[in-house]
Amino acid sequence: MIVETLARAGLGVVLAIGLGACNTTIRGTGDMGLIVERASSSIQVVETSNLTPLYQVAGLGDLSHASAVFSRDGRYAYLFGRDGGLSKIDLLQGRVTKRVVQAGNSIGGAISQDGSMVAVSNYDPGGVRIFDAESLTLLADIEARDAPDDPRSKVVGLVDAPGQRFVFSLYDSGEIWVADMSDPRDPQVTRFEDVGVQPYDGLITPDGRYYIAGLFGEDGIVLLDLWDLEAGPRRILDGYGRGEEPLPVYKMPHLEGWASAGDVLFLPAVGRHEVLIVDRRSWREVGRIALQGQPIFAVARPDGRQVWVNFAHPNNDAVQVIDVVSRRVIKTLKPGKAVLHMEFTPRGEQVWISARDDDRVKVYDTQSFAERAALPAEKPSGIFLTARANRIGL
Amino acid sequence: MIVETLARAGLGVVLAIGLGACNTTIRGTGDMGLIVERASSSIQVVETSNLTPLYQVAGLGDLSHASAVFSRDGRYAYLFGRDGGLSKIDLLQGRVTKRVVQAGNSIGGAISQDGSMVAVSNYDPGGVRIFDAESLTLLADIEARDAPDDPRSKVVGLVDAPGQRFVFSLYDSGEIWVADMSDPRDPQVTRFEDVGVQPYDGLITPDGRYYIAGLFGEDGIVLLDLWDLEAGPRRILDGYGRGEEPLPVYKMPHLEGWASAGDVLFLPAVGRHEVLIVDRRSWREVGRIALQGQPIFAVARPDGRQVWVNFAHPNNDAVQVIDVVSRRVIKTLKPGKAVLHMEFTPRGEQVWISARDDDRVKVYDTQSFAERAALPAEKPSGIFLTARANRIGL
Repeated sequence: MIVETLARAGLGVVLAIGLGACNTTIRGTGDMGLIVERASSSIQVVETSNLTPLYQVAGLGDLSHASAVFSRDGRYAYLFGRDGGLSKIDLLQGRVTKRVVQAGNSIGGAISQDGSMVAVSNYDPGGVRIFDAESLTLLADIEARDAPDDPRSKVVGLVDAPGQRFVFSLYDSGEIWVADMSDPRDPQVTRFEDVGVQPYDGLITPDGRYYIAGLFGEDGIVLLDLWDLEAGPRRILDGYGRGEEPLPVYKMPHLEGWASAGDVLFLPAVGRHEVLIVDRRSWREVGRIALQGQPIFAVARPDGRQVWVNFAHPNNDAVQVIDVVSRRVIKTLKPGKAVLHMEFTPRGEQVWISARDDDRVKVYDTQSFAERAALPAEKPSGIFLTARANRIGL
Repeated sequence: MIVETLARAGLGVVLAIGLGACNTTIRGTGDMGLIVERASSSIQVVETSNLTPLYQVAGLGDLSHASAVFSRDGRYAYLFGRDGGLSKIDLLQGRVTKRVVQAGNSIGGAISQDGSMVAVSNYDPGGVRIFDAESLTLLADIEARDAPDDPRSKVVGLVDAPGQRFVFSLYDSGEIWVADMSDPRDPQVTRFEDVGVQPYDGLITPDGRYYIAGLFGEDGIVLLDLWDLEAGPRRILDGYGRGEEPLPVYKMPHLEGWASAGDVLFLPAVGRHEVLIVDRRSWREVGRIALQGQPIFAVARPDGRQVWVNFAHPNNDAVQVIDVVSRRVIKTLKPGKAVLHMEFTPRGEQVWISARDDDRVKVYDTQSFAERAALPAEKPSGIFLTARANRIGL
């Protein structure tokens, strides 16, 4: 493979672009991914078999807090920028095939179970816009308000769910909405009001059953069982929210950073130097583990044996590894300055870690903790692998 | 996409082969898969986005009981034939790139966590042979016997496990072996003897933690916790084995057909018209569900909400769908004569079902149960999608 050979020689990013589409595209997409380079409005397309960069794609707008989902065939990435930009990127050819600026201020997106629709979560104008995944034409515009005269709410915590559904939270009005997109032009929205003050983020469990929203305005968490909508949202983990917190909170943890390992969840504590352990049956806290800083992401290795944690400033040069059985920290790594994100390969043998202020992405062997590669990147933040195309809620 | 357009017109199999490699290979591999056509020693390469056949690849030897695994990039399938044939197939170009007949009688295989090694489970000569995934050169030959003079045992239930390990059972000598392949040329084998009489099949739980072998020669099941090898194998579910069974057993159920859904497993009962429900924490039976025939495979939809079951002769024209919450059969479908296998798309919106004696593969929507497609195939048996490349133990 020409591209890989060049790339292994460290020239892939420069020279691959010079090759014809044909030569550059004869490869599988199951081992590909992208690294967000937030400061330069670009991404790097990478592959995890030889740990090489393949392309750099630029001109992608404001990529602070950018995230990505993938087409069901793994060929295309949909990149969600902070400036409302939605970019469809051909990973095989290293180029933008379509790009729309669909709102003024956005915060992530999702792709439908069947891969036919891409949804974007917007702050301004507040709501969710849903696009055809092939053409990026607008299919539906769900305004986050009850009546045309009401102000719109910011929308957060948007995820996909089985049954062609999207689930999201309304920050300003304190609601959770479930949109059934079985008819793409006619969303059927189920609304849950008064779920709590200022839901600021959400996640869905890996099986697609439970939607969980964190509350910024009060203590606690809201849980919605998507298998039993009639039961409605219920409060769990009172005291988890920021209200509990006497220490300064440098950064609210991402709920996407809740690790599901076996029968328990590992949650970054808000402000505290701890992760909380929560039983998945009772939704009660069953333990805490002390850490070296304020956790941001707690991510389970795909086999659930380890949980890897990164941290808020000023302890953000380290990553700690928790052994799930002994519930102890078994390793502290120093990947570099300002560790922002961690992504495992789908079967868990590698983890990719971005160190923004060192302009490096490091790849570690998760069993030996050996450093396998250090890839140059411009202020890297999020790392996303195509295997996400096969997962519910990612 | 030329190929897809032709294929949608029903001409894909014929004309795609006529196209140049370049045109036929510009596509992602995440939505691809293959259908085993056992009577004609061929496979069909298919894709699940437009539900079309792409290629037919012939000359693959004896494909009775054939299975496949996939390279980590999703481009190549490794097909394990009953005659010891190991074929590496390029799904993007629809051709065999390498083929070795590595034994006289084989029964499946696995691919290592990092995708670098392919292992084959052999009856004759009894053992496991491990090949370089790129070149198919032999790396290691693990003979299934304790001493060079001993007879070899047939090997069954071969699976991959995290940590570059392969786990398998010895039918004749009643053992479970765990092979650590961290050094591909020097396997480190941990042997567990006297685990029970005639282990006939095995599986690993989706998290890669528990290896489970079924016993043909006595009642019961053997469980090995790969996170605690010192504890050794232990017996569970006494009475599950065939010894319990007064009815004629038309076909032993596949343990790969155990469905893991939330906190429970659904197991095909041996001989009885039932599936057993087993608690995953206690490993005890907590219920049974009556069915219309002897179950062969019980497969959980990826979200764990449904379990789909097929059956042994003479009730093998039907598939029944169990709702996991109510634990009731909610649907009985008649896909055709001699339903042999079921495969879900990774996010669960489709299921592909082979009806051997109707020479058809049917695709159903798993929410509406609507038939979405019926693809012609020659005596189809196993169906395998590339998403398996991202899963532990598949």
